[in-house]
Amino acid sequence: MEPPKRKELTVEDYINGVLAGDRALLARAITLIESHSERHRPIATEVLNGIIPQTGKSIRIGITGVPGAGKSTLIEALGTMLCDKGHRVAVLAVDPSSQLTKGSILGDKTRMEELSRNKNAYVRPSPSSGTLGGVTRRSRETLLLCEAAGFDVIIVETVGVGQSEAVVRSMVDCFLVLMLTGAGDELQGIKKGVMEMADAIFINKADGPNRQVALKTKAEYNRLLHFLPQATEGWETKAYTVSALTGEGISEMWDVIYSFFQFSKENGIFEERREKQALEWFYAVIEDELKLWFFQQDDIKQQLPLLMEQMRKGEVVPTVAASQLLTTFTNGLEKRKEEG
Amino acid sequence: MEPPKRKELTVEDYINGVLAGDRALLARAITLIESHSERHRPIATEVLNGIIPQTGKSIRIGITGVPGAGKSTLIEALGTMLCDKGHRVAVLAVDPSSQLTKGSILGDKTRMEELSRNKNAYVRPSPSSGTLGGVTRRSRETLLLCEAAGFDVIIVETVGVGQSEAVVRSMVDCFLVLMLTGAGDELQGIKKGVMEMADAIFINKADGPNRQVALKTKAEYNRLLHFLPQATEGWETKAYTVSALTGEGISEMWDVIYSFFQFSKENGIFEERREKQALEWFYAVIEDELKLWFFQQDDIKQQLPLLMEQMRKGEVVPTVAASQLLTTFTNGLEKRKEEG
Repeated sequence: MEPPKRKELTVEDYINGVLAGDRALLARAITLIESHSERHRPIATEVLNGIIPQTGKSIRIGITGVPGAGKSTLIEALGTMLCDKGHRVAVLAVDPSSQLTKGSILGDKTRMEELSRNKNAYVRPSPSSGTLGGVTRRSRETLLLCEAAGFDVIIVETVGVGQSEAVVRSMVDCFLVLMLTGAGDELQGIKKGVMEMADAIFINKADGPNRQVALKTKAEYNRLLHFLPQATEGWETKAYTVSALTGEGISEMWDVIYSFFQFSKENGIFEERREKQALEWFYAVIEDELKLWFFQQDDIKQQLPLLMEQMRKGEVVPTVAASQLLTTFTNGLEKRKEEG
Repeated sequence: MEPPKRKELTVEDYINGVLAGDRALLARAITLIESHSERHRPIATEVLNGIIPQTGKSIRIGITGVPGAGKSTLIEALGTMLCDKGHRVAVLAVDPSSQLTKGSILGDKTRMEELSRNKNAYVRPSPSSGTLGGVTRRSRETLLLCEAAGFDVIIVETVGVGQSEAVVRSMVDCFLVLMLTGAGDELQGIKKGVMEMADAIFINKADGPNRQVALKTKAEYNRLLHFLPQATEGWETKAYTVSALTGEGISEMWDVIYSFFQFSKENGIFEERREKQALEWFYAVIEDELKLWFFQQDDIKQQLPLLMEQMRKGEVVPTVAASQLLTTFTNGLEKRKEEG
């Protein structure tokens, strides 16, 4: 059954709703910025311009880990505890699987049911399609909307596929890696570079007969971490054990995150990282859109098939062909500029 | 003392010299394509267009390994053996360290002295500066020049820093990883993704008291390889031992490479990979040059500092600012186009 058609909201409706912390309006604002419709983008831009002064005040936390590491359960436990302490917690996802398979590794709307029902929490399901660049861009804007809606802890969840960890690292202040006991990181399928991004490592499922093994795994990771460069200068990344099942270590997990937050605030790393990230967001969007624009130009669309054919036959050097295509194009623009 | 000024060569001089296999002229042609001078680029382009029909006929081999793994000594041993068998061997380097530190991890002109003196070999020192994009582009063109000069085995050497392995993988038909005995791959500083690019793994320095340990390490890597996806579909990547010192395993190393070459030729993977690589080269150059061009435009240079300042103060959403900058720019161009 089709849902009844909702009344179109004005820019002010969106801005006021988000700033008032209205979860239904926040959800609609996120849907607006996620929209692929050309018609929605100018409104989305105005909404984002309207809420920007109220953003930037949360602690942004990234969490990664292989499927099965228990991310959702752990985030639910951590989030519920934080809500009980008076925090307002938003959980987002960067899920590159959704663009490849149209499925979702991180699961869909039914995940984190308890936290979803908590009035101080907001759990956003994964955006469901688009390029990694597009998904990333919308995740960043969603994060800002959540901040404007008064959420002071934002958790961005991802799974170790392709470049998603680097994307999440570039969105957050503090990056956590969730591990399991037993297998080494090769067998867990964690890329080595990911360990080097971690500000803390948590060995999950440290409960029951698994508890002793978890303590041993923790010691192993602590040894390994000595060989890796620091993810955040001056901060020693350590491994900890935690259990989403018994709740043991959840409170300590927040202590680690909060200590990191204070440490990075005090020595300026926090502000410096945020400024650097803003610049990276800026350049990433420019690069994406510049490419899109270029390949939509009539002269390029005309010349490309011929060049492709010549390359296929080995008649032109690809680097030379690229350079010439670009030069012809930009020279044409320069000429029009001078004539104009 | 300044070297005497050399006579300027014509496009024909370069093309004929390279096609005749003249090593001195090949060296000058490579210097020409490596030149940052605007004046040299059109000549370089004509030379590349002139030699393209004579390219593509070599086996392109990539070799990586941490510093100390013995890459140079092994390449010298392999290269010398191939020259004795009647092959003509060129050795190139993609050395990202040179752009960062102005030094070179792979060593300079004095490396591989014996092979350098062999009349059937050509050892090119690392290009010494430029962006990774620039270095990469010139390495690809250098490879084509070497093929045109009649070298039928091209070895591209790199070291595991940053993205250089992925760059080399994108240039070659067959990718080899050189390892040492003893330490696991974590301690050797090899990124996990690199193991997954390998068509064969060679445990070097399998000689003297180290020989037994090498055999054990080989077995360990063979076990590990079972857990990794195949670098080349249908080809089982295996580990082997080799000694550049005693020469043991050098001949078998070539057998592995040649079997791989025959396998990939027979089932079409060879041609398919080369076509895909040509397209990647093409798009990579377009992206690099498009960005360069964009940020040199007057309107962009004018607007950028203000936007940067607004972003620093948190007054604009970076993704929105980027989008708007680009839209203003491209709309301006469209308008001129309509008027022109």
